[in-house]
This record gives sequence, C-alpha cells and structure tokens, in this order.
Amino acid sequence: MRILGIDPGLATMGYGIIDSEGRKPRLVTAGAVITTPDMRMYERLLKIHTDIRDLIRLYQPDDIVFEELFFAKNVTTALNVGAARGVALCACAEFTGNLYEYTPMQIKQAVVGYGNADKHQVQHMVKLLLNLPDIIRPDDAADAVAAALTHFNTGMMKTEYRMK
Amino acid sequence: MRILGIDPGLATMGYGIIDSEGRKPRLVTAGAVITTPDMRMYERLLKIHTDIRDLIRLYQPDDIVFEELFFAKNVTTALNVGAARGVALCACAEFTGNLYEYTPMQIKQAVVGYGNADKHQVQHMVKLLLNLPDIIRPDDAADAVAAALTHFNTGMMKTEYRMK
Repeated sequence: MRILGIDPGLATMGYGIIDSEGRKPRLVTAGAVITTPDMRMYERLLKIHTDIRDLIRLYQPDDIVFEELFFAKNVTTALNVGAARGVALCACAEFTGNLYEYTPMQIKQAVVGYGNADKHQVQHMVKLLLNLPDIIRPDDAADAVAAALTHFNTGMMKTEYRMK
Repeated sequence: MRILGIDPGLATMGYGIIDSEGRKPRLVTAGAVITTPDMRMYERLLKIHTDIRDLIRLYQPDDIVFEELFFAKNVTTALNVGAARGVALCACAEFTGNLYEYTPMQIKQAVVGYGNADKHQVQHMVKLLLNLPDIIRPDDAADAVAAALTHFNTGMMKTEYRMK
C-alpha cells in the first residue's frame, strides 16, 4: 500500500510518500510545494493545486493523509491557510475518496510515543523508522512523512480517522 | 464584455453573469452552488470547484470579480470559508488571470450610492439596473450580480481592483 502524507500550508506545503512492504515502511519521495509572497494569491493556489494533482497522478497513492489544521494566528491567516489546504484537498478528492486526517498530537504520539514531542524528535524518529541516512528537509516534508507513518501504524483502525 | 461575479461561501456560493451591450448591462444568468453540511468537506470543495469550472467553460467570461472576504466569526469558520473561496479562485485562475476584487462597501457604494446600504436596497437596485421583473434569488446570487455591476461601472479604473 502506498500512502501520501500532506502537511498543509500556503508558503510551504509539505508532502511525503511511503510504501508498505509487509510490515516495514519505505520512503518513496518527500518534498514541498513552495509559493512566495511576491506571487498573486490565485497564482499560489493554482500552483498548489497543479503540483499536488501532478504528484498524485505520478505516484498513484492508495490513501492520502492530511495533518489537521485547527490553529491560525488570526482570521486573515486562517482564510489564506484554509484556501491552501482547500485547493490541496480538492486536488486529492478529484483522485480518490480515501482521505484521512490526524491531529499533530496523534502524529507525535504515533511516531515518537508521546503527544508533546518536539519537531526535532519527530524528525529523528522519521529518520530511524525509515532507515534514512539523514533527517528529511524541509521540516514540513518531514511532518508530512510523519503523517503518512501515522496512517501506516494505525493499520486496521484507520476508518476511524476518515476525513469528515 | 462579459463579467462573472462571485460571492464566495461554503454553503452558498453565489454567481451572476452580465454582458455589457454598449453602456447598458444585461443579465445572462445568476444562481448559486449549494453544498450541505451532510456532505464531507472535500466533497463540498470538489463540487464548488467543478461547478465553477463548468460555469466558466460554458459562459466564457472576460473578467471575473469576487466580493472580498475579510470577516469570519472565528478561526474555524475562516478555515472553511477560506477553503471554499480558495477552490473557486483556483477554478477561475485555471481559466484567466483577469481576476478582480471589491469590498462589500465598494459594491454597495457602486450599486446603491452609499456604502452602508442594506441587503434589500442592493437587491432592489440590481433589479432596477438590469430591468428585471423581480429581485434575484437567492441573496448570494444578487450579491454576485452586484459585484459584476460594480466592475461594469468601474470602467477604465478597473486595473486598480485587480486581485493581489
């Protein structure tokens, strides 16, 4: 089974894909869609939509997992981050209904073993679990891989985390 | 020139299209994309994206105008309304870069003559300006047509309102 994890953001939308070969996960690819403030908002959204769509077409994931967003500094930020997440979600929904969501705390719990782990602990455990030579960069790509690993670990329980 | 106006929302995304025949605007169509809370969020976003894309392909507008969103009850609402606006904007950006935005106050000012006009005054003036037998329903469709009329009235000044 192939799992795509997404850590949604406007400036940096992290992604990571893992394959499960029996009980062991293997990293396929990880990276981020980057957009910059000098771009018009609609150009940023269009780039996110296109890049995520192309990624899905290329790698054909079975399940797609989002890290849940429920915090933003203020309403204006929430409108923009919500838009970025929305277009990524839309690109995924065009391809499959196998969409899942985990909170940051659930991801930390699954990957590190406790929900208040910091960013470095998550990055370190992602590296160990996937037997990588180095930690994944940027941070958002590592977080996206952590979301995919959480889904991998959840196994038969996963229907509980199906996106609403 | 053909102008598509959009009043963005998650449950009701109003739209309205006008043609300018010389100095007089003419209503082509108006309506709303409706999604309901019993649908999954990604299904709602996918429906908005698909319906707005199909509308644009069918009517081939020259310019597209959004009513600006800058208010939401709270961060959670802003994430959802921002997502709905984002996918509509993305569908438009796939078709054209001729995207414009007006605040509710600018629209009321342009259509009624003062920025604090209420909903009923806007609906009534839209009916008069387009020489319609009745007011446009639902409200969000009337608001979308009002946004399109604002752009029509702005004429040569319109580059000032190009979307950032």
